[in-house]
Amino acid sequence: MSVQPVLVNGEWRTSDAIGEFETINPTTKTALPETYPVSSAAEAEAAILAGHEAAVALRTISPDQIARFLETYADAIEARSDALIDLAYAETALPKSPRLRNVELPRTTDQLRQAAAAARERSWCLATIDTARNIRSMYGPLGGPVVVFGPNNFPFAFGSASGGDFAAAIAAGNPVIAKANTGHPGTTRLFAEAAFEAIQATGMPKALVQLLYRVKPDVGYRLVSHPLVGATGFTGSRSAGLRLKEAADKAGKPIYLEMSSINPIFVLPGALEERPDAVAAELYASCSLGVGQFCTKPGFVVLLHNEKSEAFFDKVKEHFQNPPGVLLGKGGVWTIAEAVKKLQAAGAQLITGGREVEGTSYRYANTLLRVSGDDFLKRPNELQIEAFGVVSLVVFAQDVAQMCEIAASLEGNLTGCLYSHTGGDDDALYDQVAPILRAKVGRLLNDKMPTGVAVSPAMNHGGPYPATGHPGFTAVGVPASLLRFGALHCYDAVRHHRLPPELQDKNPTGTMWRWIDGGWTQKDIE
Amino acid sequence: MSVQPVLVNGEWRTSDAIGEFETINPTTKTALPETYPVSSAAEAEAAILAGHEAAVALRTISPDQIARFLETYADAIEARSDALIDLAYAETALPKSPRLRNVELPRTTDQLRQAAAAARERSWCLATIDTARNIRSMYGPLGGPVVVFGPNNFPFAFGSASGGDFAAAIAAGNPVIAKANTGHPGTTRLFAEAAFEAIQATGMPKALVQLLYRVKPDVGYRLVSHPLVGATGFTGSRSAGLRLKEAADKAGKPIYLEMSSINPIFVLPGALEERPDAVAAELYASCSLGVGQFCTKPGFVVLLHNEKSEAFFDKVKEHFQNPPGVLLGKGGVWTIAEAVKKLQAAGAQLITGGREVEGTSYRYANTLLRVSGDDFLKRPNELQIEAFGVVSLVVFAQDVAQMCEIAASLEGNLTGCLYSHTGGDDDALYDQVAPILRAKVGRLLNDKMPTGVAVSPAMNHGGPYPATGHPGFTAVGVPASLLRFGALHCYDAVRHHRLPPELQDKNPTGTMWRWIDGGWTQKDIE
Repeated sequence: MSVQPVLVNGEWRTSDAIGEFETINPTTKTALPETYPVSSAAEAEAAILAGHEAAVALRTISPDQIARFLETYADAIEARSDALIDLAYAETALPKSPRLRNVELPRTTDQLRQAAAAARERSWCLATIDTARNIRSMYGPLGGPVVVFGPNNFPFAFGSASGGDFAAAIAAGNPVIAKANTGHPGTTRLFAEAAFEAIQATGMPKALVQLLYRVKPDVGYRLVSHPLVGATGFTGSRSAGLRLKEAADKAGKPIYLEMSSINPIFVLPGALEERPDAVAAELYASCSLGVGQFCTKPGFVVLLHNEKSEAFFDKVKEHFQNPPGVLLGKGGVWTIAEAVKKLQAAGAQLITGGREVEGTSYRYANTLLRVSGDDFLKRPNELQIEAFGVVSLVVFAQDVAQMCEIAASLEGNLTGCLYSHTGGDDDALYDQVAPILRAKVGRLLNDKMPTGVAVSPAMNHGGPYPATGHPGFTAVGVPASLLRFGALHCYDAVRHHRLPPELQDKNPTGTMWRWIDGGWTQKDIE
Repeated sequence: MSVQPVLVNGEWRTSDAIGEFETINPTTKTALPETYPVSSAAEAEAAILAGHEAAVALRTISPDQIARFLETYADAIEARSDALIDLAYAETALPKSPRLRNVELPRTTDQLRQAAAAARERSWCLATIDTARNIRSMYGPLGGPVVVFGPNNFPFAFGSASGGDFAAAIAAGNPVIAKANTGHPGTTRLFAEAAFEAIQATGMPKALVQLLYRVKPDVGYRLVSHPLVGATGFTGSRSAGLRLKEAADKAGKPIYLEMSSINPIFVLPGALEERPDAVAAELYASCSLGVGQFCTKPGFVVLLHNEKSEAFFDKVKEHFQNPPGVLLGKGGVWTIAEAVKKLQAAGAQLITGGREVEGTSYRYANTLLRVSGDDFLKRPNELQIEAFGVVSLVVFAQDVAQMCEIAASLEGNLTGCLYSHTGGDDDALYDQVAPILRAKVGRLLNDKMPTGVAVSPAMNHGGPYPATGHPGFTAVGVPASLLRFGALHCYDAVRHHRLPPELQDKNPTGTMWRWIDGGWTQKDIE
């Protein structure tokens, strides 16, 4: 079978390939029929130049038209949902139902439609007007394409040509160069086909969406650091993310990274007293969702050491003895095994799991480890590494002070949870631990596992480094996620007819919120 | 005279100095009596640890108390204005009046009071509430001290212990470690004394404000990259800024840089036809303000080449033959001379100036250079370097296409201006040039020079790299400047009484704006 074409400058063209690759069906360990090209530096350069031209063309395209594109694209996705689901299943082993069909696909089209609504409504751009001084500002497009690197674990909702970064970048007025995750290149191609149809149907610049499947590292560095690129959105491993970050940082290009997170869960003694079985079940359900391959999987649990917590631990262990699901690929088996080895080498005791499950699919046994607070605090950095599967490390703190010390030793994480007694029994302890944890995480939860990441305006799917590259931005949630792909544009004494509609006296939509002279309002300026 | 003490952990202590330095009065070229310490790595570490403790203590201090501190501090500054003005004049040669007394000091106290009002009012934190899902988020403090490196040219309004970064960092709930600019360490000491009095008077954590005067580069890198540091604000040279950026980036620590900018001015033909003398006078006034030592000084002027523009240029040249003011120091003479040399080496023709003025003060002749559009486009990078004094390069474009090409070749700048005919004569040309310039600058102006940077909520004193390190943030303007020093804190299903007041159902001030379920409101949640 011939190599699949890339989408560059509005054309499905034969790649100027310097290599090719195939994908393996994780359920059967057999190769899928298609092969995909590794793009050359020249091909990446061509995409950047075309993306920049598209960014220029977008200057005169209205937010309404951008919204129509996103909506048309969402419809096109729904029209080919069977093909998407079939191919994504073959490429990733993620269950067709409910996961792909009933959860991830609706989430994806919902995100695109929310982004469309935000683009049309325009409050996202934080228009700010000082009428006395005639200074007006708003967030506008970056002026160059946004490069999106999607992760392996959400082929739809975080996909490079379909997910949250994609939707946010487009809604903020930027073209996208999608770099497919090499775990699901075919799924990404189907999305890009649907996007390209929507581009043609809505009269958008032809290079609004482009697709490359794979590049060598140096070409990746060029993509994120090119002078004509606007910014990068990356979701993936810490090692790849940090290498791209270094290249982008050196060039002064914004890069938004969502890397690794162990998502600590503190279960306070009153909660263990009150509802140990329920918490153990919730913990396992959250750990095993998506076969543990979630950025927000709780991989780190902190308990005060006593009889109740030992009994709780035994309960958790029982859950972990369930048979494991199929992983996204062979790489997953390897990275989990490496992480578990490292945790053991650093002093964690393996309780269950810790081995690949042989068979026709890629599987790794659900793995539970434990360590004392004393031992954890001897090697805190080595014992808080992410293992991207159904793996969790339980830390037994010897007292409250040590629990606080453990919290203080944590790196930046996407989430942190506290389970506490539904009455007030844990409140004093909560008040000690929560402020420490607050400073370490993007999202703090109570009595709730972190794996559900609602697409809400109030969501923060972000957090301090190294969970991400910057503590002030979220990758999920409209309209906040759009701000990552905006530049602050100030207009000082610019003549009224030359202002963008968002900053003219008349509110361009009648409903857009603007900060005018000290308060938010939907009114016109009289 | 003994070495001045540092302010570390609430104590004016003898520095653990590894060296000392003195300052030179630029007006007389004689040393000032005081000497200042170069702090050791251990001293910087002590400041960071104390700053972190202060950040922890700030968790339980209300925005009201922070506001009272800022206001008390502003009052304390006014109470010692004579001493500040005298010493700043001695250290920087900036005129006492109107500059220091009537412009920069009131601007400084106004910024502090605006920041206080923003802290008290709380709309800055963009509280966002999704009541259906009970997810609530806001910007909160970073959890560690903010390191502020102030520039040489605004000893008050951008001072490391008194300026915009300082005010924004404190108002957002973070302690500050001020690294004085070595051009005015005594002025910074006076500010820190006033700040420390205000700390004591308002019961704030003793290490809320700390002061170091100078550190070796490796200690500077440590300050911006230390795990306990929250972020850094830097205003200064591109070379120093980029070195600090590299260190901070590598550690994943936010750093907000305001580096260099040539602030291009495009004077379109209709404006030259209509009011050449007025524009020439405005240009010179803006160039020579603060002896050209403004981040927003117009150092780059683009004209269409014709008789009118040659006549305009002659007019500008006449202005530039005025005697120059006193520079901030000897370093200024050297950096201007170097920049002028480089511009000449790259093909710019020196028209007037281009030499140090001998005498008892540090002065450099006002310097005007010119280059053809053809020659500029041969070496655009070398011909758009900042010369921090009364230096401007005029580029004569041979036609409209070349003018656009020049605009497209520009690096990121803080500002960009277009002067055009007050009727519509230049509108077609404006529409070609302005969109290109828009993508290159933080603030776009019409018929107005860029040197006035109003402290307005709509201001953007920022712009694309390398003017700053990120295109989405402003260093001037309350409340937007506070967001640089905030982390996005999400609360998911957190019990109501555990939420910060800003996210509880009842609006904590009655006037704070919050985004609740799709719109901004000042109402409580019922």
